[in-house]
Amino acid sequence: MSTCIFCAIMRGEAPAERVYEDDDLLAFLDSRPITRGHTLVVPKTHAAELGDLDPEAGARMFRLGHRLVLALRRSDLAADGANLMLNDGPAAFQTVAHVHLHVVPRRHGDRLRFATGLLLRRSTEPAATAAAIRAALGGPDAAS
Amino acid sequence: MSTCIFCAIMRGEAPAERVYEDDDLLAFLDSRPITRGHTLVVPKTHAAELGDLDPEAGARMFRLGHRLVLALRRSDLAADGANLMLNDGPAAFQTVAHVHLHVVPRRHGDRLRFATGLLLRRSTEPAATAAAIRAALGGPDAAS
Ligand SMILES: [Zn+2]
Ligand SMILES: [Zn+2]
Repeated sequence: MSTCIFCAIMRGEAPAERVYEDDDLLAFLDSRPITRGHTLVVPKTHAAELGDLDPEAGARMFRLGHRLVLALRRSDLAADGANLMLNDGPAAFQTVAHVHLHVVPRRHGDRLRFATGLLLRRSTEPAATAAAIRAALGGPDAAS
Repeated sequence: MSTCIFCAIMRGEAPAERVYEDDDLLAFLDSRPITRGHTLVVPKTHAAELGDLDPEAGARMFRLGHRLVLALRRSDLAADGANLMLNDGPAAFQTVAHVHLHVVPRRHGDRLRFATGLLLRRSTEPAATAAAIRAALGGPDAAS
């Protein structure tokens, strides 16, 4: 898919604040975050919807989502929780036709900020945010 | 956790419309569905949050979520898509302290129904709904 924005990010042809990369997956900050630290986990092989995605690739994506939730909690962002969200199909609000898992860090008492973020989706300090998440993910498999 | 409603469902001490069961997982209809067919995937071993959940158990839960999305699309419910959602922690709207993955079937043009469902969360024909999903999941591992 030459016009797929996520495939363009994989190829380094579109910018993104990367937080994790391995042979199968790339994770980067959502450019229009609902909350600070909102990250997308994306399988490297293009698949438009879950029906096109190999179940093994799906399992790896969700496993990284699980790991990112724990990292966001212990990171300098000090999340108190997180929402994992995957919108499958345009009927379910999927906007980019390449499967992606949203990881949205949450804080106690952030309901209003969350609601505002859903409308405004403004990014602040993405480089520092990505660095904080990378540090918390740690290990040799974190993106450098 | 003797007071956990999901553990009570596992033990058969609380009612639920079951759609799938194996050694590690139970899936049943949300008693207060956002849309018709809204299903919860629950690891059998009690874990309050993702931080308490074995990553392997998490991967199995998400794998079944993926499978359920495909089943909902080919079922008589004829979903056009679905939202997968996991709320980790009270800060992220988690209401039952036992990890669970929401699978919410969607239809084209159901935005208003979805918004209404978020507020009302009323169940209609749960037995027929569960039967339709079980039939679409198929195979010998479906709940009988
Ligand atoms: Zn792509
Ligand atoms: Zn429980």
